[in-house]
Amino acid sequence: MNNILADIPAQLPAELSTSLLQNDKVHIERIVSRGHAGAKGEWYDQAHDEWVLLIQGEAVLEFAEQAELKKLQAGDYLLIPAHCRHRVDSTHPDVDSIWLAIHFDG
Amino acid sequence: MNNILADIPAQLPAELSTSLLQNDKVHIERIVSRGHAGAKGEWYDQAHDEWVLLIQGEAVLEFAEQAELKKLQAGDYLLIPAHCRHRVDSTHPDVDSIWLAIHFDG
Repeated sequence: MNNILADIPAQLPAELSTSLLQNDKVHIERIVSRGHAGAKGEWYDQAHDEWVLLIQGEAVLEFAEQAELKKLQAGDYLLIPAHCRHRVDSTHPDVDSIWLAIHFDG
Repeated sequence: MNNILADIPAQLPAELSTSLLQNDKVHIERIVSRGHAGAKGEWYDQAHDEWVLLIQGEAVLEFAEQAELKKLQAGDYLLIPAHCRHRVDSTHPDVDSIWLAIHFDG
């Protein structure tokens, strides 16, 4: 048994992605951000749906087709449909933001 | 956007399952237990794999083929393969135990 809150390096120069499970249906990963964010105007544009849950921390997402930024608190979850362009605008600088991401690309 | 920690009834006479997402690959549900457990000797025997993550609380699982009980803390996750018989032996009586369960039955 593993713990999704554990095994986070003391130093985190970049966002950390860890694969938790991959089968013919999904790819489940943990993403840890410590103040990391994406560059303005650079979008994730994925060919598959993704479901994300913020387990700990705080994050702000930007969607290309939405004027307002989306602020996430611990426990918030949402489905990001395929080709819904998005980016991480910011994450909490002092608290590790831990995401569970389920990619439906199996 | 929804929050997995929210919308928990004040009274919880039985374990509460809420469907969060269902597509052709998976069924994602939230399960909330407040001291609820399964009867001794009564097993879940599922035809599909299930991945579970304990987001909050404490729980003890029993597996038919394992002598030792498995104690889960917040953040613990595991894959329960199809036909791996299991039951919830106990959950914390005072703190809501919130599970994320991903059923690969799509």
